[in-house]
Amino acid sequence: MIKVGVVGATGYTGVELLRLLVRHPQVEVLCVTSRGEAGTRVDAMFPNLRGFLDLQFVEPDAAPLTECDLVFFATPNGTAMQSVPALVEAGVRVIDLAADFRIRDAGEWTQWYGMEHACPELLAEAVYGLPEINREAIRSARVVANPGCYPTAVTLGFLPLIESGLAARGALIADAKSGVSGAGRKAQVGTLFSEADENFKAYGVAGHRHLPEIRQTLSAVAGETVGLTFVPHLVPMVRGIHATLYTTVAGEADLQALFEQRYAAEPFVDVLPAGSHPETRTVRGVNTCRIAVHRPQGGDTVVVLSVIDNLVKGAAGQAVHNLNLMFGLDEALGLDTPALLP
Amino acid sequence: MIKVGVVGATGYTGVELLRLLVRHPQVEVLCVTSRGEAGTRVDAMFPNLRGFLDLQFVEPDAAPLTECDLVFFATPNGTAMQSVPALVEAGVRVIDLAADFRIRDAGEWTQWYGMEHACPELLAEAVYGLPEINREAIRSARVVANPGCYPTAVTLGFLPLIESGLAARGALIADAKSGVSGAGRKAQVGTLFSEADENFKAYGVAGHRHLPEIRQTLSAVAGETVGLTFVPHLVPMVRGIHATLYTTVAGEADLQALFEQRYAAEPFVDVLPAGSHPETRTVRGVNTCRIAVHRPQGGDTVVVLSVIDNLVKGAAGQAVHNLNLMFGLDEALGLDTPALLP
Amino acid sequence: MIKVGVVGATGYTGVELLRLLVRHPQVEVLCVTSRGEAGTRVDAMFPNLRGFLDLQFVEPDAAPLTECDLVFFATPNGTAMQSVPALVEAGVRVIDLAADFRIRDAGEWTQWYGMEHACPELLAEAVYGLPEINREAIRSARVVANPGCYPTAVTLGFLPLIESGLAARGALIADAKSGVSGAGRKAQVGTLFSEADENFKAYGVAGHRHLPEIRQTLSAVAGETVGLTFVPHLVPMVRGIHATLYTTVAGEADLQALFEQRYAAEPFVDVLPAGSHPETRTVRGVNTCRIAVHRPQGGDTVVVLSVIDNLVKGAAGQAVHNLNLMFGLDEALGLDTPALLP
Amino acid sequence: MIKVGVVGATGYTGVELLRLLVRHPQVEVLCVTSRGEAGTRVDAMFPNLRGFLDLQFVEPDAAPLTECDLVFFATPNGTAMQSVPALVEAGVRVIDLAADFRIRDAGEWTQWYGMEHACPELLAEAVYGLPEINREAIRSARVVANPGCYPTAVTLGFLPLIESGLAARGALIADAKSGVSGAGRKAQVGTLFSEADENFKAYGVAGHRHLPEIRQTLSAVAGETVGLTFVPHLVPMVRGIHATLYTTVAGEADLQALFEQRYAAEPFVDVLPAGSHPETRTVRGVNTCRIAVHRPQGGDTVVVLSVIDNLVKGAAGQAVHNLNLMFGLDEALGLDTPALLP
Repeated sequence: MIKVGVVGATGYTGVELLRLLVRHPQVEVLCVTSRGEAGTRVDAMFPNLRGFLDLQFVEPDAAPLTECDLVFFATPNGTAMQSVPALVEAGVRVIDLAADFRIRDAGEWTQWYGMEHACPELLAEAVYGLPEINREAIRSARVVANPGCYPTAVTLGFLPLIESGLAARGALIADAKSGVSGAGRKAQVGTLFSEADENFKAYGVAGHRHLPEIRQTLSAVAGETVGLTFVPHLVPMVRGIHATLYTTVAGEADLQALFEQRYAAEPFVDVLPAGSHPETRTVRGVNTCRIAVHRPQGGDTVVVLSVIDNLVKGAAGQAVHNLNLMFGLDEALGLDTPALLP
Repeated sequence: MIKVGVVGATGYTGVELLRLLVRHPQVEVLCVTSRGEAGTRVDAMFPNLRGFLDLQFVEPDAAPLTECDLVFFATPNGTAMQSVPALVEAGVRVIDLAADFRIRDAGEWTQWYGMEHACPELLAEAVYGLPEINREAIRSARVVANPGCYPTAVTLGFLPLIESGLAARGALIADAKSGVSGAGRKAQVGTLFSEADENFKAYGVAGHRHLPEIRQTLSAVAGETVGLTFVPHLVPMVRGIHATLYTTVAGEADLQALFEQRYAAEPFVDVLPAGSHPETRTVRGVNTCRIAVHRPQGGDTVVVLSVIDNLVKGAAGQAVHNLNLMFGLDEALGLDTPALLP
Repeated sequence: MIKVGVVGATGYTGVELLRLLVRHPQVEVLCVTSRGEAGTRVDAMFPNLRGFLDLQFVEPDAAPLTECDLVFFATPNGTAMQSVPALVEAGVRVIDLAADFRIRDAGEWTQWYGMEHACPELLAEAVYGLPEINREAIRSARVVANPGCYPTAVTLGFLPLIESGLAARGALIADAKSGVSGAGRKAQVGTLFSEADENFKAYGVAGHRHLPEIRQTLSAVAGETVGLTFVPHLVPMVRGIHATLYTTVAGEADLQALFEQRYAAEPFVDVLPAGSHPETRTVRGVNTCRIAVHRPQGGDTVVVLSVIDNLVKGAAGQAVHNLNLMFGLDEALGLDTPALLP
Repeated sequence: MIKVGVVGATGYTGVELLRLLVRHPQVEVLCVTSRGEAGTRVDAMFPNLRGFLDLQFVEPDAAPLTECDLVFFATPNGTAMQSVPALVEAGVRVIDLAADFRIRDAGEWTQWYGMEHACPELLAEAVYGLPEINREAIRSARVVANPGCYPTAVTLGFLPLIESGLAARGALIADAKSGVSGAGRKAQVGTLFSEADENFKAYGVAGHRHLPEIRQTLSAVAGETVGLTFVPHLVPMVRGIHATLYTTVAGEADLQALFEQRYAAEPFVDVLPAGSHPETRTVRGVNTCRIAVHRPQGGDTVVVLSVIDNLVKGAAGQAVHNLNLMFGLDEALGLDTPALLP
């Protein structure tokens, strides 16, 4: 059994990670930490775990994190980087579900996240945990930077077009829509039910932190800096991301075949038949990204539709996928269930 | 492996049953029937099953139902009773998720369902599939009448009070609220999104078909006819039933202990700590009924709060529980996952 | 023109009051106060008011409240009572939309609201602003206690049965359901979209502050203390309250006629035809209470269904109705629009 | 008083039109027709109109349509064109809320709507009822083609950029999102609550009927055919359209000033301050289009955000605006209320 700890599990990413871990046949959850909730039973806060997890939240300092084989950080940005160096030093592997290790350039990280990075030396070593690109590096990584939710959906949608050199790299548009759980479980007016229900809006048009993350990944694939416009929107639903991606492609390429071949061996990317419109509910609760590619009226503009569950493939599920890779397990272990529909 | 067939799986009960069955380690789904969708791949209609079920819908007459060990009927009321006698004759066991075998009195059944019963001789034999009451009978049953969704939530909530003789049997009130999936997946104006969203209403106050079903069960337990007022309501959510139950109790009984003891050995009934308010989302996608019992201001009125997922404990999950009982398996096989929250 | 001020208009009750007041032909909004938002344009916080209200929030102390004919308090409980005596002294009339003046007994108020009352001498004078009961007293009142949302829906539903002496006064049950806006516009985890959506739960079963308010009103009508069980629930929708009321009635009274006659002259209570099920969406945005009365299967139990918009008839709209009464205007002035459906 | 008739008012556009008309101070609704509901009181189907409209639905042939000054058609596509010629002949003016008169080229209309046009001679005469472009022509029109919902939001968002010649006319992208009421009030599985709730998807990517309508209008403004990619999506909410528009603009134009000046005199277009993100709820129930224009990171890509209520500015409200123009009334008559928020 792989012994794991979860730091900061009072948010949606945390409870979703626990939901997956308690059912994982090769994982034992050793400790779950929270400064604010130390002493509270985890299943008192999250009653869906009643009968599945017999633990209380403990103070991070009191938790046996160094006895773990792997520690997940499901903490706010800027927290993991304080503790990761010591854990790595102690031989513990780490998956950070926040953004601390996603941007390789410390200066750019500071620009977008508004603080100095606490361990820039680990930035270079950390592996960006998108298995569809970095599978081999993840297997041996000491620190995995689990990708953001929007970056997962957007990157997987553009990837075949960028790798193949077909896309116009200067003019990528990602119009992305997310359920409200993406904003987290913190008390704030903007995501109250009465503010978010029966409403639709864009936000962060001037610049969102996932923009540099997506651009970094796609530029590395392209071998040159790509031009990307990224507009996120808030959808009145709890879970799900739908990315609608636009670029132009010259010539007669068979895009359906391109996508199907690219992802044929990927356990968690499902290319739908030509003409399909993926729905976010078909991935609710599961680690699958479903993709469809369109070329309306046979023109130059390509439209890719990509859906994920932001809390699973966009967070906790991808983290478990990374765990499976890091410990040589079947990639789908603990992740092979159908989505909850309706 | 237990070979099963599913008749009429194009509705929400059907797809939910398939979601559970494809993951059940002792079940093989042999065939899925539908008159209207014969020839369509099941996962084309329900994309959450892509990769989990490699079958097309077939015409009922063409399906190898008699080769099955068990056939589920997830059909409209009045359909199963046409086919069940022949299947039973052929040695196939049956679980009917519709209402054909729920009411033991053929005359009363006709009164509420508006048609003659096609096989009244099986009504007496059929076992009402609420394991918390009929566990032993279910094990050997040839025909199981899977309970309705409201009856499951209401009956489990009242049961300890009726069995113990504490409740005033003449004055039970069940104020029940259901998500919209309870109304099924058929084209009708009343359950359109734009009709049901941002709206709350009661319906069927004059008389709902689940009233005689609940009354039959509770009266059998009580040994006399109970007086029941049942008011169902429609909630703007997909899944979940919340039953708020009222009755009066004289004296000083420890109701918390009563409930805890009654359900201590039940794998799918979870009595919450005193003072709790169960939430429907804590049972989303799972077979658990969570219950809390209150006695406001120490008066005579008892308030029981009981929640289930109408499609799981109220339908498909309870059916799988019954399958497990009928074939001598661990009761929780294929049903032991935490709820999806949020 | 009647000059009005609104104290504390940053919540849902406040913005709803402003929405109604800016369209009221006899009202001029002189000032809108907020400690936290002083200096912010009101329509920057509530863009639906762009073009309708050219004011900034001002500090309460800087606001010309004593120049107003009427001041509304849309503040948290315990705020209005600090300022009302001075305003009344200055000849300004007051409508408090919070709970400060709803309970006549200062001791009971303290018990439920957890603080000493700042001006108990005004408690006796304040008029409970339910026009269907207190129309004449409201006309000349200096201080009107605008009723709570649940109390409005519940009281109007029970009223004809209590007034007529038909109801069993010892056993009233009010199973009430509210949209989430009833919980206000303050940052808290429990009413986040991802907590409240796709979920249904009861709360406050042990005792809710609206219980003594309802009991006080109905007991005054009955001439004796009524026995009431009140269970509120949270519905995943923004607006609307649905109260399902239970009591027993002996004999053959024509309840439909009783309700129709009681409310025949009331501009804002609409008794639906026999057999109806009122929907909350039919009163969205309007000051109407729609009621239906049922007697299932002709038994002794009576079921009354009563719906309102919690922010209008349950708060701001009833306040405007009270204003119209206090200043001798047509009762429906500024309130005569159809509900927004769907 | 202007005498109006409404043909086919059993859908959402119809009930919304009636909601506005019953409050319009210069309009008298003479008749409301429906083949399927003849004999039913209108307020029995739409209880929000109780007390506001004392009419039954009548058969179209029995309705006094020729006594009307204006007839609205709120019928399915292909219905109005059967009756409009005779009405026009009789001197009755017409506003069609369906698509029969929106496309000027009969061949193109047939291609997208799949039927022959019944009165192609009126296509040329009909005025496209977008007041921001065709105000003068609307005043004297005999037949007004009320614009589609998506076309209204998209066209108003692109208009200043096209008129000014700043946009790259070959590469317009309109990523549009609509509430479910846009799909109408007809029984179909796809828009059931349990299908549309907690879900987000694109549809009609290969080609949607509003594409040629938008292209026709913008091309006429541009003086050349514009290249447009239009992708509609379904949002789990009842009302509202949010169009996110992309194009490229060379140079240093002050786009904020451009938009503000273009719409300064328009009563129903509200350009928000720079940096804003319009929310659909801020236009719920009202005839306003709110727009913000962005240029992320100062690049060439311009992002315009445009929101409307699909049933008001996208249908019934714009129709009333057109009525006001056609009869020389104040443009905002009957339309000057704030949106319902929250």
